[in-house]
Amino acid sequence: MATLQERLHIQYPIVQGGMVWCSGWRLASAVSNAGGLGLLGAGSMHPDTLELHIQRCKAATNKPFGVNVPLMYPDIEAIMAIIIREKVPIVFTSAGNPKAWTATLHEHGITVGHVVSNTTFARKCDEAGVDIIVAEGMEAGGHNGREETSTLCLLPQVRAVTDKLLLAAGGISSKASFQAAMALGADGVQMGTRFALSAESSAHPAFKAYCRNLNEGQTKLLLKRLSPTRLAQNPFSERVAEAEAHGISLEDLKALQGKGRAKKGIFEGDLEEGMLEIGQTAGSIRHEETVADIFADLFA
Amino acid sequence: MATLQERLHIQYPIVQGGMVWCSGWRLASAVSNAGGLGLLGAGSMHPDTLELHIQRCKAATNKPFGVNVPLMYPDIEAIMAIIIREKVPIVFTSAGNPKAWTATLHEHGITVGHVVSNTTFARKCDEAGVDIIVAEGMEAGGHNGREETSTLCLLPQVRAVTDKLLLAAGGISSKASFQAAMALGADGVQMGTRFALSAESSAHPAFKAYCRNLNEGQTKLLLKRLSPTRLAQNPFSERVAEAEAHGISLEDLKALQGKGRAKKGIFEGDLEEGMLEIGQTAGSIRHEETVADIFADLFA
Repeated sequence: MATLQERLHIQYPIVQGGMVWCSGWRLASAVSNAGGLGLLGAGSMHPDTLELHIQRCKAATNKPFGVNVPLMYPDIEAIMAIIIREKVPIVFTSAGNPKAWTATLHEHGITVGHVVSNTTFARKCDEAGVDIIVAEGMEAGGHNGREETSTLCLLPQVRAVTDKLLLAAGGISSKASFQAAMALGADGVQMGTRFALSAESSAHPAFKAYCRNLNEGQTKLLLKRLSPTRLAQNPFSERVAEAEAHGISLEDLKALQGKGRAKKGIFEGDLEEGMLEIGQTAGSIRHEETVADIFADLFA
Repeated sequence: MATLQERLHIQYPIVQGGMVWCSGWRLASAVSNAGGLGLLGAGSMHPDTLELHIQRCKAATNKPFGVNVPLMYPDIEAIMAIIIREKVPIVFTSAGNPKAWTATLHEHGITVGHVVSNTTFARKCDEAGVDIIVAEGMEAGGHNGREETSTLCLLPQVRAVTDKLLLAAGGISSKASFQAAMALGADGVQMGTRFALSAESSAHPAFKAYCRNLNEGQTKLLLKRLSPTRLAQNPFSERVAEAEAHGISLEDLKALQGKGRAKKGIFEGDLEEGMLEIGQTAGSIRHEETVADIFADLFA
Protein backbone atom coordinates (compact mmCIF):
# COMPACT_ATOMS: atom_id res chain seq x y z
CA MET A 1 0.00 0.00 0.00
CA ALA A 2 1.14 3.53 -0.69
CA THR A 3 2.37 5.57 2.25
CA LEU A 4 0.46 8.66 3.29
CA GLN A 5 3.14 10.80 1.67
CA GLU A 6 2.83 8.89 -1.63
CA ARG A 7 -0.97 9.02 -1.51
CA LEU A 8 -1.10 12.77 -0.88
CA HIS A 9 2.09 13.74 -2.74
CA ILE A 10 3.55 15.44 0.33
CA GLN A 11 6.99 15.32 1.93
CA TYR A 12 6.08 14.87 5.63
CA PRO A 13 3.17 12.91 7.15
CA ILE A 14 1.66 16.02 8.69
CA VAL A 15 -1.83 17.28 7.90
CA GLN A 16 -2.92 20.64 9.25
CA GLY A 17 -6.44 20.29 10.63
CA GLY A 18 -9.06 22.47 8.95
CA MET A 19 -10.18 24.72 11.78
CA VAL A 20 -12.86 27.35 11.99
CA TRP A 21 -11.57 30.95 11.88
CA CYS A 22 -7.91 29.82 11.79
CA SER A 23 -7.22 28.05 8.55
CA GLY A 24 -7.65 30.23 5.50
CA TRP A 25 -5.42 30.28 2.42
CA ARG A 26 -2.48 31.81 4.28
CA LEU A 27 -2.14 28.96 6.78
CA ALA A 28 -3.05 26.15 4.36
CA SER A 29 -0.62 27.30 1.68
CA ALA A 30 2.18 27.79 4.24
CA VAL A 31 1.74 24.22 5.49
CA SER A 32 1.66 22.81 1.96
CA ASN A 33 4.71 24.84 0.99
CA ALA A 34 6.54 23.50 4.06
CA GLY A 35 5.94 19.91 2.92
CA GLY A 36 2.77 18.97 4.82
CA LEU A 37 -0.84 19.06 3.71
CA GLY A 38 -2.68 22.30 4.35
CA LEU A 39 -6.46 22.25 4.69
CA LEU A 40 -8.82 25.18 4.30
CA GLY A 41 -11.49 25.10 6.99
CA ALA A 42 -14.84 25.43 5.22
CA GLY A 43 -16.70 25.31 8.53
CA SER A 44 -16.40 29.06 9.03
CA MET A 45 -16.69 30.17 5.39
CA HIS A 46 -19.61 31.16 3.19
CA PRO A 47 -19.34 29.39 -0.17
CA ASP A 48 -18.13 32.59 -1.87
CA THR A 49 -15.45 33.01 0.78
CA LEU A 50 -14.31 29.42 0.33
CA GLU A 51 -14.05 29.93 -3.42
CA LEU A 52 -11.86 32.97 -2.88
CA HIS A 53 -9.62 31.09 -0.42
CA ILE A 54 -9.24 28.16 -2.82
CA GLN A 55 -8.17 30.53 -5.58
CA ARG A 56 -5.72 32.37 -3.31
CA CYS A 57 -4.33 29.09 -2.02
CA LYS A 58 -3.69 27.92 -5.59
CA ALA A 59 -1.87 31.18 -6.26
CA ALA A 60 0.24 30.81 -3.10
CA THR A 61 1.39 27.21 -3.57
CA ASN A 62 1.86 24.71 -6.35
CA LYS A 63 1.78 21.87 -3.80
CA PRO A 64 -1.37 19.86 -3.02
CA PHE A 65 -3.82 21.28 -0.49
CA GLY A 66 -7.31 20.32 0.58
CA VAL A 67 -10.53 21.49 2.21
CA ASN A 68 -12.07 20.30 5.47
CA VAL A 69 -15.86 20.14 5.18
CA PRO A 70 -18.09 19.54 8.22
CA LEU A 71 -20.99 17.59 6.70
CA MET A 72 -23.65 19.26 8.82
CA TYR A 73 -22.79 22.49 7.01
CA PRO A 74 -26.00 24.08 5.67
CA ASP A 75 -24.52 25.03 2.26
CA ILE A 76 -22.98 21.62 1.73
CA GLU A 77 -24.17 21.25 -1.89
CA ALA A 78 -22.76 24.62 -2.87
CA ILE A 79 -19.50 23.92 -1.03
CA MET A 80 -18.98 20.59 -2.77
CA ALA A 81 -19.84 22.09 -6.17
CA ILE A 82 -17.13 24.73 -5.70
CA ILE A 83 -14.56 22.14 -4.57
CA ILE A 84 -15.27 19.99 -7.63
CA ARG A 85 -15.30 22.94 -10.04
CA GLU A 86 -12.04 24.28 -8.61
CA LYS A 87 -10.47 20.81 -8.88
CA VAL A 88 -9.32 20.72 -5.24
CA PRO A 89 -7.47 17.38 -5.04
CA ILE A 90 -8.23 16.40 -1.42
CA VAL A 91 -11.26 16.74 0.87
CA PHE A 92 -11.46 15.82 4.54
CA THR A 93 -15.04 15.45 5.76
CA SER A 94 -16.19 15.35 9.37
CA ALA A 95 -19.27 15.51 11.58
CA GLY A 96 -21.50 13.30 9.47
CA ASN A 97 -21.85 10.07 7.52
CA PRO A 98 -18.80 9.23 5.38
CA LYS A 99 -21.09 7.57 2.84
CA ALA A 100 -22.79 10.84 2.01
CA TRP A 101 -20.14 12.33 -0.30
CA THR A 102 -17.28 9.86 -0.76
CA ALA A 103 -18.55 8.31 -4.02
CA THR A 104 -19.28 11.69 -5.60
CA LEU A 105 -15.86 13.06 -4.66
CA HIS A 106 -14.15 9.90 -5.95
CA GLU A 107 -15.96 10.28 -9.30
CA HIS A 108 -14.13 13.58 -9.65
CA GLY A 109 -10.76 12.07 -8.71
CA ILE A 110 -10.72 13.65 -5.26
CA THR A 111 -8.95 11.85 -2.39
CA VAL A 112 -11.23 11.61 0.66
CA GLY A 113 -10.36 11.64 4.35
CA HIS A 114 -12.91 11.42 7.14
CA VAL A 115 -12.60 12.24 10.84
CA VAL A 116 -13.93 9.75 13.41
CA SER A 117 -13.97 9.52 17.21
CA ASN A 118 -14.93 5.84 17.54
CA THR A 119 -14.56 2.46 15.85
CA THR A 120 -18.18 2.38 14.67
CA PHE A 121 -17.56 5.28 12.33
CA ALA A 122 -14.13 3.93 11.39
CA ARG A 123 -15.92 0.83 10.07
CA LYS A 124 -18.38 3.06 8.20
CA CYS A 125 -15.44 4.84 6.59
CA ASP A 126 -14.04 1.49 5.53
CA GLU A 127 -17.37 0.52 3.96
CA ALA A 128 -17.73 3.90 2.28
CA GLY A 129 -14.34 3.53 0.61
CA VAL A 130 -12.82 6.56 2.32
CA ASP A 131 -9.09 6.79 1.52
CA ILE A 132 -7.78 8.13 4.83
CA ILE A 133 -9.26 7.84 8.32
CA VAL A 134 -8.48 10.44 10.97
CA ALA A 135 -8.91 9.07 14.51
CA GLU A 136 -9.39 12.13 16.68
CA GLY A 137 -9.13 11.84 20.45
CA MET A 138 -10.79 13.96 23.12
CA GLU A 139 -7.75 16.21 23.42
CA ALA A 140 -8.73 17.99 20.22
CA GLY A 141 -9.95 21.57 20.24
CA GLY A 142 -13.48 22.47 19.22
CA HIS A 143 -16.03 19.83 18.32
CA ASN A 144 -15.42 16.37 19.70
CA GLY A 145 -17.00 12.94 19.80
CA ARG A 146 -19.29 11.98 22.64
CA GLU A 147 -17.14 9.06 23.80
CA GLU A 148 -14.31 11.18 25.27
CA THR A 149 -11.77 8.56 24.21
CA SER A 150 -8.20 9.82 24.24
CA THR A 151 -5.92 9.54 21.20
CA LEU A 152 -3.75 7.03 23.08
CA CYS A 153 -6.74 4.72 23.55
CA LEU A 154 -8.58 5.47 20.30
CA LEU A 155 -5.78 5.06 17.74
CA PRO A 156 -4.94 1.41 18.48
CA GLN A 157 -8.63 0.49 18.54
CA VAL A 158 -9.24 2.08 15.14
CA ARG A 159 -6.02 0.53 13.80
CA ALA A 160 -7.43 -2.86 14.83
CA VAL A 161 -10.57 -2.50 12.69
CA THR A 162 -9.21 -0.99 9.47
CA ASP A 163 -6.24 -1.27 7.09
CA LYS A 164 -6.84 2.21 5.65
CA LEU A 165 -4.27 4.97 5.92
CA LEU A 166 -4.75 6.28 9.44
CA LEU A 167 -3.97 9.66 10.96
CA ALA A 168 -3.83 10.35 14.69
CA ALA A 169 -5.37 13.64 15.79
CA GLY A 170 -5.86 15.28 19.17
CA GLY A 171 -3.04 16.13 21.55
CA ILE A 172 -0.22 16.05 19.00
CA SER A 173 1.94 19.15 18.85
CA SER A 174 5.60 18.15 19.17
CA LYS A 175 8.23 15.82 17.82
CA ALA A 176 7.74 13.56 20.87
CA SER A 177 3.96 13.34 20.45
CA PHE A 178 4.35 12.85 16.69
CA GLN A 179 6.69 9.92 17.37
CA ALA A 180 4.27 8.58 19.99
CA ALA A 181 1.45 8.63 17.43
CA MET A 182 3.60 6.77 14.92
CA ALA A 183 4.47 4.19 17.61
CA LEU A 184 0.73 3.68 18.14
CA GLY A 185 0.34 2.62 14.52
CA ALA A 186 -0.54 5.88 12.76
CA ASP A 187 0.58 6.57 9.18
CA GLY A 188 0.76 10.26 10.00
CA VAL A 189 -0.82 12.91 12.18
CA GLN A 190 -3.26 15.77 11.93
CA MET A 191 -2.20 18.75 14.02
CA GLY A 192 -4.57 21.60 14.79
CA THR A 193 -3.74 23.57 17.90
CA ARG A 194 -0.10 24.29 17.14
CA PHE A 195 -0.98 25.57 13.66
CA ALA A 196 -3.94 27.55 15.05
CA LEU A 197 -1.47 29.52 17.17
CA SER A 198 1.10 30.03 14.40
CA ALA A 199 1.79 33.36 12.68
CA GLU A 200 -0.05 32.31 9.49
CA SER A 201 -3.27 31.39 11.31
CA SER A 202 -6.09 33.86 10.79
CA ALA A 203 -7.02 33.70 14.47
CA HIS A 204 -6.84 37.00 16.37
CA PRO A 205 -3.46 37.78 17.98
CA ALA A 206 -5.15 38.17 21.37
CA PHE A 207 -6.61 34.64 21.06
CA LYS A 208 -3.20 33.22 20.17
CA ALA A 209 -1.46 34.98 23.05
CA TYR A 210 -4.15 33.84 25.51
CA CYS A 211 -3.89 30.21 24.40
CA ARG A 212 -0.10 30.26 24.68
CA ASN A 213 -0.50 31.06 28.38
CA LEU A 214 -2.87 28.22 29.26
CA ASN A 215 -1.79 25.51 31.64
CA GLU A 216 -2.88 21.89 31.54
CA GLY A 217 -6.42 21.61 32.85
CA GLN A 218 -7.40 25.01 31.45
CA THR A 219 -9.30 23.65 28.48
CA LYS A 220 -12.51 21.74 29.09
CA LEU A 221 -15.03 19.70 27.15
CA LEU A 222 -18.25 21.68 27.49
CA LEU A 223 -21.63 22.07 25.75
CA LYS A 224 -22.00 18.30 26.00
CA ARG A 225 -25.75 18.26 25.44
CA LEU A 226 -25.35 20.16 22.20
CA SER A 227 -22.08 18.90 20.74
CA PRO A 228 -19.11 18.34 23.07
CA THR A 229 -16.67 21.17 22.38
CA ARG A 230 -13.23 21.77 23.89
CA LEU A 231 -12.88 25.37 25.00
CA ALA A 232 -10.21 27.35 26.77
CA GLN A 233 -11.29 28.58 30.16
CA ASN A 234 -12.67 32.12 30.11
CA PRO A 235 -15.67 33.95 31.59
CA PHE A 236 -18.03 32.47 28.97
CA SER A 237 -16.77 28.89 29.48
CA GLU A 238 -17.07 29.32 33.25
CA ARG A 239 -20.72 30.29 32.87
CA VAL A 240 -21.34 27.22 30.71
CA ALA A 241 -19.53 24.91 33.16
CA GLU A 242 -21.52 26.30 36.07
CA ALA A 243 -24.82 25.96 34.21
CA GLU A 244 -23.99 22.40 33.14
CA ALA A 245 -23.07 21.41 36.70
CA HIS A 246 -26.56 22.55 37.68
CA GLY A 247 -28.28 20.54 34.95
CA ILE A 248 -29.15 23.26 32.42
CA SER A 249 -31.74 22.18 29.86
CA LEU A 250 -30.90 21.79 26.19
CA GLU A 251 -32.97 24.84 25.26
CA ASP A 252 -31.40 27.05 27.90
CA LEU A 253 -27.96 25.85 26.85
CA LYS A 254 -28.68 26.81 23.24
CA ALA A 255 -29.79 30.24 24.41
CA LEU A 256 -26.69 30.62 26.59
CA GLN A 257 -24.44 29.74 23.67
CA GLY A 258 -26.22 32.04 21.25
CA LYS A 259 -24.77 32.63 17.79
CA GLY A 260 -21.37 33.58 16.49
CA ARG A 261 -19.35 33.02 19.65
CA ALA A 262 -16.56 31.06 17.93
CA LYS A 263 -16.02 33.92 15.48
CA LYS A 264 -16.17 36.41 18.33
CA GLY A 265 -13.55 34.56 20.37
CA ILE A 266 -11.16 33.19 17.76
CA PHE A 267 -11.39 35.72 14.93
CA GLU A 268 -12.31 38.90 16.78
CA GLY A 269 -10.31 38.19 19.93
CA ASP A 270 -13.10 38.73 22.45
CA LEU A 271 -11.54 36.78 25.34
CA GLU A 272 -14.44 37.38 27.70
CA GLU A 273 -17.50 36.48 25.67
CA GLY A 274 -16.10 34.43 22.80
CA MET A 275 -15.88 30.64 22.52
CA LEU A 276 -12.16 29.92 22.53
CA GLU A 277 -11.90 26.56 20.72
CA ILE A 278 -8.45 25.08 21.29
CA GLY A 279 -6.91 21.69 22.08
CA GLN A 280 -5.61 20.33 25.36
CA THR A 281 -2.06 20.52 24.08
CA ALA A 282 -2.17 24.34 24.07
CA GLY A 283 -0.42 24.10 27.45
CA SER A 284 2.69 22.84 25.64
CA ILE A 285 2.90 25.77 23.22
CA ARG A 286 4.54 28.88 24.65
CA HIS A 287 6.22 30.82 21.87
CA GLU A 288 5.29 32.73 18.74
CA GLU A 289 6.37 30.84 15.65
CA THR A 290 5.76 30.47 11.92
CA VAL A 291 4.73 27.34 10.05
CA ALA A 292 8.33 27.03 8.83
CA ASP A 293 9.51 27.10 12.47
CA ILE A 294 7.11 24.27 13.31
CA PHE A 295 8.38 22.03 10.50
CA ALA A 296 11.98 22.81 11.41
CA ASP A 297 11.29 21.83 15.02
CA LEU A 298 9.53 18.60 14.00
CA PHE A 299 11.96 17.43 11.33
CA ALA A 300 15.31 19.15 11.94
CA MET B 1 21.20 9.32 36.61
CA ALA B 2 20.17 5.72 37.24
CA THR B 3 17.53 4.24 34.99
CA LEU B 4 14.20 3.19 36.45
CA GLN B 5 15.32 -0.43 36.28
CA GLU B 6 18.53 0.35 38.16
CA ARG B 7 16.71 2.43 40.75
CA LEU B 8 14.08 -0.24 41.45
CA HIS B 9 16.24 -3.32 40.73
CA ILE B 10 13.81 -4.63 38.13
CA GLN B 11 14.30 -6.05 34.64
CA TYR B 12 11.59 -4.18 32.68
CA PRO B 13 10.36 -0.60 33.15
CA ILE B 14 6.84 -1.74 34.01
CA VAL B 15 5.11 -0.96 37.29
CA GLN B 16 1.79 -2.60 38.06
CA GLY B 17 -0.52 0.04 39.49
CA GLY B 18 -1.77 -0.64 43.02
CA MET B 19 -5.51 -0.98 42.51
CA VAL B 20 -8.35 -1.45 44.96
CA TRP B 21 -9.73 -5.01 45.09
CA CYS B 22 -7.39 -6.24 42.32
CA SER B 23 -3.83 -6.11 43.52
CA GLY B 24 -3.15 -8.42 46.43
CA TRP B 25 -0.03 -10.54 46.96
CA ARG B 26 -0.86 -12.90 44.11
CA LEU B 27 -0.85 -10.18 41.43
CA ALA B 28 2.02 -8.14 42.91
CA SER B 29 4.32 -11.15 43.32
CA ALA B 30 3.50 -12.42 39.82
CA VAL B 31 4.46 -9.04 38.31
CA SER B 32 7.67 -8.85 40.35
CA ASN B 33 8.56 -12.43 39.42
CA ALA B 34 8.00 -11.58 35.75
CA GLY B 35 10.55 -8.76 35.95
CA GLY B 36 8.34 -5.72 36.62
CA LEU B 37 7.46 -4.04 39.89
CA GLY B 38 4.34 -5.35 41.62
CA LEU B 39 2.45 -3.07 44.00
CA LEU B 40 0.01 -4.13 46.69
CA GLY B 41 -3.00 -1.83 46.71
CA ALA B 42 -3.45 -0.67 50.31
CA GLY B 43 -6.50 1.37 49.36
CA SER B 44 -8.85 -1.57 49.86
CA MET B 45 -7.08 -3.25 52.79
CA HIS B 46 -7.41 -2.96 56.53
CA PRO B 47 -3.96 -2.65 58.13
CA ASP B 48 -4.06 -6.29 59.28
CA THR B 49 -4.93 -7.42 55.76
CA LEU B 50 -2.08 -5.40 54.30
CA GLU B 51 0.36 -6.95 56.77
CA LEU B 52 -0.76 -10.41 55.70
CA HIS B 53 -0.42 -9.54 52.01
CA ILE B 54 3.08 -8.13 52.54
CA GLN B 55 4.14 -11.34 54.29
CA ARG B 56 2.61 -13.54 51.57
CA CYS B 57 4.20 -11.42 48.85
CA LYS B 58 7.63 -11.85 50.49
CA ALA B 59 7.06 -15.61 50.55
CA ALA B 60 6.02 -15.65 46.87
CA THR B 61 8.89 -13.62 45.42
CA ASN B 62 12.44 -12.68 46.28
CA LYS B 63 12.26 -9.75 43.86
CA PRO B 64 11.42 -6.19 44.97
CA PHE B 65 7.79 -5.23 45.36
CA GLY B 66 6.01 -2.22 46.81
CA VAL B 67 2.79 -0.84 48.26
CA ASN B 68 0.52 1.84 46.84
CA VAL B 69 -0.89 4.04 49.61
CA PRO B 70 -3.65 6.58 48.95
CA LEU B 71 -2.78 9.32 51.44
CA MET B 72 -6.39 10.10 52.33
CA TYR B 73 -6.58 6.61 53.83
CA PRO B 74 -7.98 6.84 57.38
CA ASP B 75 -5.51 4.33 58.89
CA ILE B 76 -2.51 5.97 57.24
CA GLU B 77 -0.32 5.96 60.40
CA ALA B 78 -0.92 2.26 60.99
CA ILE B 79 -0.34 1.45 57.32
CA MET B 80 2.97 3.30 57.19
CA ALA B 81 4.11 1.69 60.49
CA ILE B 82 3.50 -1.76 59.00
CA ILE B 83 5.32 -0.90 55.77
CA ILE B 84 8.34 0.36 57.71
CA ARG B 85 8.33 -2.59 60.14
CA GLU B 86 8.05 -5.11 57.31
CA LYS B 87 10.88 -3.33 55.43
CA VAL B 88 8.93 -2.95 52.21
CA PRO B 89 11.52 -1.34 49.88
CA ILE B 90 9.21 0.82 47.71
CA VAL B 91 6.08 2.91 48.38
CA PHE B 92 3.96 4.73 45.81
CA THR B 93 1.74 7.37 47.37
CA SER B 94 -1.22 9.07 45.73
CA ALA B 95 -4.22 11.28 46.46
CA GLY B 96 -2.49 13.68 48.80
CA ASN B 97 0.53 15.89 49.46
CA PRO B 98 3.85 14.24 48.54
CA LYS B 99 5.52 16.15 51.39
CA ALA B 100 3.47 14.33 54.00
CA TRP B 101 5.43 11.05 54.11
CA THR B 102 8.42 11.22 51.78
CA ALA B 103 11.00 12.27 54.39
CA THR B 104 9.86 9.62 56.89
CA LEU B 105 9.96 6.88 54.26
CA HIS B 106 13.39 8.02 53.09
CA GLU B 107 14.68 7.83 56.67
CA HIS B 108 13.88 4.14 56.52
CA GLY B 109 15.59 3.66 53.17
CA ILE B 110 12.33 3.34 51.25
CA THR B 111 12.14 4.51 47.63
CA VAL B 112 9.15 6.82 47.10
CA GLY B 113 6.96 7.29 44.04
CA HIS B 114 4.00 9.68 43.89
CA VAL B 115 1.12 9.85 41.43
CA VAL B 116 0.15 13.23 39.96
CA SER B 117 -2.35 14.47 37.40
CA ASN B 118 -0.94 17.95 36.84
CA THR B 119 2.30 19.92 36.80
CA THR B 120 1.54 21.74 40.06
CA PHE B 121 1.80 18.48 41.98
CA ALA B 122 4.75 17.33 39.88
CA ARG B 123 6.61 20.40 41.13
CA LYS B 124 5.56 19.57 44.70
CA CYS B 125 7.00 16.07 44.22
CA ASP B 126 10.24 17.60 43.07
CA GLU B 127 10.39 19.83 46.15
CA ALA B 128 9.48 16.94 48.44
CA GLY B 129 12.37 14.87 47.09
CA VAL B 130 10.13 12.09 45.73
CA ASP B 131 12.24 9.58 43.74
CA ILE B 132 9.76 8.70 41.00
CA ILE B 133 6.85 10.71 39.61
CA VAL B 134 3.88 8.96 38.01
CA ALA B 135 2.02 11.23 35.56
CA GLU B 136 -1.43 9.69 35.29
CA GLY B 137 -3.77 10.77 32.51
CA MET B 138 -7.56 10.82 32.46
CA GLU B 139 -7.70 7.41 30.74
CA ALA B 140 -6.90 5.72 34.06
CA GLY B 141 -9.49 3.61 35.86
CA GLY B 142 -10.89 4.64 39.22
CA HIS B 143 -9.90 7.90 40.88
CA ASN B 144 -8.63 10.62 38.60
CA GLY B 145 -7.46 14.20 38.69
CA ARG B 146 -9.91 17.04 38.11
CA GLU B 147 -8.08 18.40 35.06
CA GLU B 148 -9.05 15.55 32.70
CA THR B 149 -5.69 15.87 30.94
CA SER B 150 -4.83 12.85 28.79
CA THR B 151 -1.56 10.97 29.16
CA LEU B 152 -0.47 12.20 25.73
CA CYS B 153 -0.82 15.83 26.86
CA LEU B 154 0.20 15.41 30.51
CA LEU B 155 3.44 13.44 30.17
CA PRO B 156 5.37 16.01 28.10
CA GLN B 157 4.20 18.83 30.34
CA VAL B 158 5.37 17.01 33.47
CA ARG B 159 8.62 16.04 31.72
CA ALA B 160 9.20 19.76 31.07
CA VAL B 161 9.09 20.68 34.79
CA THR B 162 11.09 17.86 36.41
CA ASP B 163 14.21 15.76 35.86
CA LYS B 164 12.97 12.99 38.18
CA LEU B 165 12.37 9.47 36.97
CA LEU B 166 8.97 9.65 35.31
CA LEU B 167 6.35 6.99 34.67
CA ALA B 168 3.44 7.40 32.28
CA ALA B 169 0.13 6.00 33.51
CA GLY B 170 -3.37 5.91 32.04
CA GLY B 171 -4.25 4.30 28.72
CA ILE B 172 -1.16 2.09 28.45
CA SER B 173 -1.84 -1.60 27.89
CA SER B 174 0.13 -2.80 24.86
CA LYS B 175 3.56 -2.84 23.31
CA ALA B 176 2.50 0.02 21.02
CA SER B 177 1.21 2.21 23.85
CA PHE B 178 4.29 1.35 25.95
CA GLN B 179 6.51 2.50 23.09
CA ALA B 180 4.38 5.62 22.64
CA ALA B 181 4.86 6.48 26.31
CA MET B 182 8.61 6.03 26.01
CA ALA B 183 8.59 8.27 22.90
CA LEU B 184 6.84 10.94 25.00
CA GLY B 185 9.79 11.00 27.39
CA ALA B 186 8.78 8.49 30.07
CA ASP B 187 11.37 6.35 31.87
CA GLY B 188 8.79 3.60 32.21
CA VAL B 189 5.07 3.02 32.56
CA GLN B 190 2.54 2.11 35.19
CA MET B 191 -0.12 -0.25 33.87
CA GLY B 192 -3.32 -0.92 35.77
CA THR B 193 -6.22 -2.09 33.66
CA ARG B 194 -4.47 -4.91 31.82
CA PHE B 195 -3.18 -6.35 35.12
CA ALA B 196 -6.58 -5.84 36.78
CA LEU B 197 -8.06 -8.20 34.19
CA SER B 198 -5.29 -10.81 34.39
CA ALA B 199 -5.67 -14.25 35.96
CA GLU B 200 -3.68 -13.26 39.07
CA SER B 201 -5.85 -10.22 39.85
CA SER B 202 -8.16 -10.70 42.83
CA ALA B 203 -11.04 -9.05 40.95
CA HIS B 204 -14.14 -11.20 40.46
CA PRO B 205 -14.19 -13.29 37.25
CA ALA B 206 -17.52 -11.72 36.27
CA PHE B 207 -15.96 -8.23 36.54
CA LYS B 208 -13.01 -9.28 34.39
CA ALA B 209 -15.24 -10.87 31.73
CA TYR B 210 -17.49 -7.79 31.65
CA CYS B 211 -14.55 -5.39 31.22
CA ARG B 212 -13.08 -7.51 28.41
CA ASN B 213 -16.28 -6.90 26.45
CA LEU B 214 -16.34 -3.13 26.73
CA ASN B 215 -15.98 -0.99 23.64
CA GLU B 216 -14.34 2.41 23.50
CA GLY B 217 -16.67 4.99 24.98
CA GLN B 218 -18.06 2.53 27.54
CA THR B 219 -16.08 3.88 30.46
CA LYS B 220 -16.85 7.35 31.76
CA LEU B 221 -15.50 9.83 34.25
CA LEU B 222 -18.28 10.20 36.79
CA LEU B 223 -18.83 11.34 40.40
CA LYS B 224 -17.02 14.55 39.48
CA ARG B 225 -18.29 16.55 42.43
CA LEU B 226 -16.94 13.96 44.84
CA SER B 227 -13.76 12.70 43.20
CA PRO B 228 -13.72 12.09 39.44
CA THR B 229 -13.76 8.32 38.97
CA ARG B 230 -13.60 6.32 35.74
CA LEU B 231 -16.25 3.61 35.73
CA ALA B 232 -17.41 1.03 33.23
CA GLN B 233 -20.94 1.61 32.04
CA ASN B 234 -23.52 -0.39 34.02
CA PRO B 235 -26.92 0.30 35.60
CA PHE B 236 -25.31 2.06 38.57
CA SER B 237 -23.08 4.27 36.39
CA GLU B 238 -26.08 5.13 34.20
CA ARG B 239 -28.00 6.34 37.25
CA VAL B 240 -25.05 8.49 38.29
CA ALA B 241 -24.63 9.93 34.78
CA GLU B 242 -28.32 10.77 34.59
CA ALA B 243 -28.31 12.38 38.02
CA GLU B 244 -25.19 14.40 37.20
CA ALA B 245 -26.70 15.62 33.92
CA HIS B 246 -29.56 16.97 35.99
CA GLY B 247 -27.29 18.77 38.45
CA ILE B 248 -27.48 16.46 41.47
CA SER B 249 -26.27 18.08 44.71
CA LEU B 250 -23.11 16.88 46.46
CA GLU B 251 -25.13 15.45 49.34
CA ASP B 252 -27.49 13.54 47.09
CA LEU B 253 -24.55 12.26 45.07
CA LYS B 254 -22.90 10.95 48.25
CA ALA B 255 -26.15 9.22 49.17
CA LEU B 256 -26.50 7.75 45.68
CA GLN B 257 -22.97 6.39 45.81
CA GLY B 258 -23.39 4.94 49.30
CA LYS B 259 -20.68 2.72 50.76
CA GLY B 260 -18.78 -0.30 49.54
CA ARG B 261 -19.75 -0.15 45.87
CA ALA B 262 -16.21 -0.67 44.55
CA LYS B 263 -15.89 -3.86 46.58
CA LYS B 264 -19.34 -4.93 45.44
CA GLY B 265 -18.52 -4.43 41.80
CA ILE B 266 -14.87 -5.40 41.49
CA PHE B 267 -14.45 -8.03 44.23
CA GLU B 268 -17.94 -9.48 44.50
CA GLY B 269 -18.83 -9.21 40.81
CA ASP B 270 -22.13 -7.36 41.20
CA LEU B 271 -22.35 -5.96 37.68
CA GLU B 272 -25.63 -4.13 38.26
CA GLU B 273 -25.07 -2.25 41.51
CA GLY B 274 -21.30 -2.24 41.90
CA MET B 275 -18.86 0.51 40.92
CA LEU B 276 -16.78 -1.00 38.12
CA GLU B 277 -13.52 0.97 38.25
CA ILE B 278 -11.53 0.32 35.07
CA GLY B 279 -9.46 2.29 32.57
CA GLN B 280 -10.41 3.52 29.10
CA THR B 281 -8.04 1.01 27.54
CA ALA B 282 -10.23 -1.90 28.65
CA GLY B 283 -11.66 -1.78 25.14
CA SER B 284 -8.31 -3.06 23.83
CA ILE B 285 -8.19 -6.11 26.11
CA ARG B 286 -10.22 -9.05 24.86
CA HIS B 287 -8.63 -12.30 26.07
CA GLU B 288 -7.96 -14.10 29.32
CA GLU B 289 -4.26 -14.07 30.14
CA THR B 290 -1.74 -14.44 32.94
CA VAL B 291 0.87 -11.93 34.05
CA ALA B 292 3.50 -14.05 32.27
CA ASP B 293 1.44 -13.80 29.05
CA ILE B 294 1.40 -10.00 29.39
CA PHE B 295 5.18 -9.73 29.78
CA ALA B 296 5.73 -12.14 26.89
CA ASP B 297 3.46 -10.00 24.70
CA LEU B 298 5.21 -6.76 25.72
CA PHE B 299 8.80 -7.96 25.49
CA ALA B 300 8.92 -11.02 23.23
